[in-house]
Amino acid sequence: MPSYNAPVEDTLFLLNDVLGFHDHSHLPRFSEATPDVVEAILKEGAKFCEEQLQPLNQIGDHEGCTRHDDGRVTTPKGFKEAYDAFCEAGWGSLAIPEQYGGQNLPASLAVVLNEFMCSANMAFAMYPGLTQGAIAALLEHASDEFKDTYLPKMTTGEWTGTMNLTEPHCGTDLGLLRTKAVPQGDGSYKISGTKIFISAGEHDLSDNIVHLVLARIEGAPAGTKGISLFLVPKKRLDADGNPAEDNGVSCGSIEEKMGIHGNATCVMNYDEATGWLIGEENKGLRAMFVMMNEARLGVAIQGVSQSEVAYQNAVAYAKDRIQGRSLTGPKAPDKPADPIIVHPDVRRVLMTIRSFNEAARALYIHTAIKGDISHVSEDEAERQAADDFMGLMTPVLKGVLTDKGFDYSVMAQQMFGGHGYISEWGMEQFVRDARIAMIYEGANGIQALDLVGRKLPANGGRAIQAFFKEVGGFLKEHGDNEDLQGFTKPLKKGLDDLQAATMWLMQNGMANPDNAGAASTDYMHLMGLVGMGYMWAKIAVVAQAKLEEGAGDKEEMLKNKLTLGTFYMERLMPETGAQLARLSTGAQTMMSLPEEAF
Amino acid sequence: MPSYNAPVEDTLFLLNDVLGFHDHSHLPRFSEATPDVVEAILKEGAKFCEEQLQPLNQIGDHEGCTRHDDGRVTTPKGFKEAYDAFCEAGWGSLAIPEQYGGQNLPASLAVVLNEFMCSANMAFAMYPGLTQGAIAALLEHASDEFKDTYLPKMTTGEWTGTMNLTEPHCGTDLGLLRTKAVPQGDGSYKISGTKIFISAGEHDLSDNIVHLVLARIEGAPAGTKGISLFLVPKKRLDADGNPAEDNGVSCGSIEEKMGIHGNATCVMNYDEATGWLIGEENKGLRAMFVMMNEARLGVAIQGVSQSEVAYQNAVAYAKDRIQGRSLTGPKAPDKPADPIIVHPDVRRVLMTIRSFNEAARALYIHTAIKGDISHVSEDEAERQAADDFMGLMTPVLKGVLTDKGFDYSVMAQQMFGGHGYISEWGMEQFVRDARIAMIYEGANGIQALDLVGRKLPANGGRAIQAFFKEVGGFLKEHGDNEDLQGFTKPLKKGLDDLQAATMWLMQNGMANPDNAGAASTDYMHLMGLVGMGYMWAKIAVVAQAKLEEGAGDKEEMLKNKLTLGTFYMERLMPETGAQLARLSTGAQTMMSLPEEAF
Repeated sequence: MPSYNAPVEDTLFLLNDVLGFHDHSHLPRFSEATPDVVEAILKEGAKFCEEQLQPLNQIGDHEGCTRHDDGRVTTPKGFKEAYDAFCEAGWGSLAIPEQYGGQNLPASLAVVLNEFMCSANMAFAMYPGLTQGAIAALLEHASDEFKDTYLPKMTTGEWTGTMNLTEPHCGTDLGLLRTKAVPQGDGSYKISGTKIFISAGEHDLSDNIVHLVLARIEGAPAGTKGISLFLVPKKRLDADGNPAEDNGVSCGSIEEKMGIHGNATCVMNYDEATGWLIGEENKGLRAMFVMMNEARLGVAIQGVSQSEVAYQNAVAYAKDRIQGRSLTGPKAPDKPADPIIVHPDVRRVLMTIRSFNEAARALYIHTAIKGDISHVSEDEAERQAADDFMGLMTPVLKGVLTDKGFDYSVMAQQMFGGHGYISEWGMEQFVRDARIAMIYEGANGIQALDLVGRKLPANGGRAIQAFFKEVGGFLKEHGDNEDLQGFTKPLKKGLDDLQAATMWLMQNGMANPDNAGAASTDYMHLMGLVGMGYMWAKIAVVAQAKLEEGAGDKEEMLKNKLTLGTFYMERLMPETGAQLARLSTGAQTMMSLPEEAF
Repeated sequence: MPSYNAPVEDTLFLLNDVLGFHDHSHLPRFSEATPDVVEAILKEGAKFCEEQLQPLNQIGDHEGCTRHDDGRVTTPKGFKEAYDAFCEAGWGSLAIPEQYGGQNLPASLAVVLNEFMCSANMAFAMYPGLTQGAIAALLEHASDEFKDTYLPKMTTGEWTGTMNLTEPHCGTDLGLLRTKAVPQGDGSYKISGTKIFISAGEHDLSDNIVHLVLARIEGAPAGTKGISLFLVPKKRLDADGNPAEDNGVSCGSIEEKMGIHGNATCVMNYDEATGWLIGEENKGLRAMFVMMNEARLGVAIQGVSQSEVAYQNAVAYAKDRIQGRSLTGPKAPDKPADPIIVHPDVRRVLMTIRSFNEAARALYIHTAIKGDISHVSEDEAERQAADDFMGLMTPVLKGVLTDKGFDYSVMAQQMFGGHGYISEWGMEQFVRDARIAMIYEGANGIQALDLVGRKLPANGGRAIQAFFKEVGGFLKEHGDNEDLQGFTKPLKKGLDDLQAATMWLMQNGMANPDNAGAASTDYMHLMGLVGMGYMWAKIAVVAQAKLEEGAGDKEEMLKNKLTLGTFYMERLMPETGAQLARLSTGAQTMMSLPEEAF
């Protein structure tokens, strides 16, 4: 049976010591999140995840969700009770404004809880996770009336939310969608069509489900310019605002899929369901993008979450499993063999995963803090810079953290040998669950295109130039520190490679957009490596300074951070050179193979 | 529903034009394998795989194997009929000596059929695949009496075989095994113990199952020096050599696992089962190694097989699925969107997989030909050189082709977006099935250790020096060809990196074996890339020469080979530099993290 301990201490170290979370305490939201509050929330949240969600993870996988003949869907045993406990504790309300019943804390705190929840039980965490995304879209685009009606219940978790984008013939290219909306003259619309892959589309956890649905108003333009966003509740509300009549929304089937069995992935049928426009007519994609950015960060975190829990279990196994002897002589001479953690190749695997997990966590928190600042800073320039960073890094986090989160879950599974392939050990579930994160909320190839095609050129490259300046400034500040050469030199090399790749893109992507497409995935991963390398270098600066001051009982922890960071620099950063070499070869070869030759 | 077309033409091109299969026609086995015979076998084999095995692949996955209360195991619907057809056609007899009823053809031909079978239905192919391994061990180590008794029935497939190595507490470290053998004074032994992860351990396909079992004779030394190999039939034979009485062998349970559901992975209980010693007392591991080398090549091929079938389906989807527009303007203006194969990032993925598949196939066939030569050449030096090559390349093929075969199955799945995650499309099955190949027959970390710890230093580095000489000689011969610079230059760079890595290992692995362990996986992958790069360069030489001669209707095919090979050189070979950089950082950092800090 797998286990999980939420990395509370590591996270507090990042928030308090490395990423300057409390430097923003003069700002709204941050002002409530004092060090005591943050620590209490993380510890309580950890406990909830470890004790209530994690034990349900394998059950959820084995049992899955069940659609009954009447269209009802029931979640696995224990999910309803755990969800009630989730609502009771108010875990869904952390980052929601007070006026809708929320705790008004920074989103950068809520995302950490999201990591813990996903590590403990990713399929479960998706139910409240989607609600958070729906709340974000409504906050941004709904009228006050709709906000007042729906948000308080979604904040408590009494009602959940969904995103309805995909149709059988269109996922990436939403311009093709066919679901239609017919105005009824009273401000409402009749929505008809079929949506697929709707996570948490139907279930037994909440009293109502608030579907956000993309549809085309009759007569609207073809393509993406004719898409509007609608709120379509599972049950229409009565005069008191309570769920009452069914609303022509039904779950046609649930998908048999590779993983996240505890989450109901539904085919949703809208049969003249009543819906209300959210935001402006034909501006639905823009409204949905708010939700998608939230969701993309959430999915990025899912990648780390599976890598983290898989790592923890791989470590426990590597310390316990005895097999063979150390190459340098027995380390457990009293036993018939040494624990496999004595082997360098085992340590290489474990440290690869761990050094990724910690840097990835730092980078997503760093980005989430920028996200908060982009909302609450009183300084326009600071807001814009933070928003630039968030926009630039969101596709990188989504693409890189889920690609690598999956790869590293696979590597952790490998530590178990044959047992890793057997269901009861739970490792193969982490792999199957992690796999979806590379696909949904925009497949990772789309993230890479978003990065090179939209985020890089936006505003004349303002965001990437600012990133270069941030990392370059850091290097200027610390480059002379002799003790940190093992960090600053590889980071400098990585930054140089990233700048060269950016230059290559500017020169060649303009001339032929296929060059940008051909380079996109390598470029995205190159930026991810540099971003995480930057995080390790920041950690190293802090660790070194604290060690020089005399760190007391933190000394071991800080030294270990330097070792892990050194490992990252030695073993993960060299990839940037290969990425640059690959992407610089351009699109010509790949475009010259005739289609029929594939 | 996925489909599969065996790559017959590509394989014939490799055998006939690139790898010089028929250059050996003066040798036994090869002499029977005339071009006509080879073509007929591949085409018939392809047909069998496409028509009879592939349609059962998803059924096998969904239905799995069933253990009944009486210990019987039944395979999925259709497997028995397909297996009967397999036996009927004599597919299991290709490379078996005539005296046991075989066709005495080169093993390098049989392995190609194995690829086709695994692509079509990996779980099915494992039943006859394990029989082949058992036959190899018996051929090498059993007495004539046992060979005459067992081999003819195993050749026809009437009886199948298994390998019984793993026990609950030991897999990699067989020295720990506890299954015991008690001599009965009549040449037989009573075997007692529990074996786990026994593929094809019990099933309804054959009349008898010949288990090869590692056990410790009472009083034998501890560790690997006290292990013997036994033949333990499921049913003991009567005086006429027919299966009669049950033999104290039973399947205790079948494992619930991530994939290969159509193959029964059994816990096997031996309860004073009668067994007979194969080979010498306490030399069981050596005997088993014969089987394991066969099996490792077979597993390497499983890696390619899943990557190949996943690729084929991804290509079909990429040509069919319309979504978005080409970055350089509509390519299918008559349709609402372009097929996704117009996108460079899609082509990058597909060509990565394809250029790996073709080179991997070339390399495993090249190695299998060397394996044949090591058996049938009349020249002692040639036999030794071929054996060296086979020994050196076996762990590389096992480790690299399964690691990459899995990665590329995942990449092919990604082409399908959300549909790739849904069971009915079949892509996620390829991923789950491919995953096991990285684990069994020696987890890939063990392959890497076998390479750097045993195969490299053996005979003063004779094998690796010969490999350098082979590739170096090729480069000397073709390095001046201006038209092939796109191949020879990157190959030279890769070879340089491999030589530098080898030098590093010699200098640092001796001083501290942990350095060898720390470098092993990167080194293995580096050798794999160079080996496959060498194959592409060989293909390019042939293609270029034929194009210069005028290739008629082969012209397109040959040009496309050059394009694919160029892609490999541009996009896959740059990794060798990163591998060298990583492994050169040594073991110090990874060994310095205290165990409790993991």
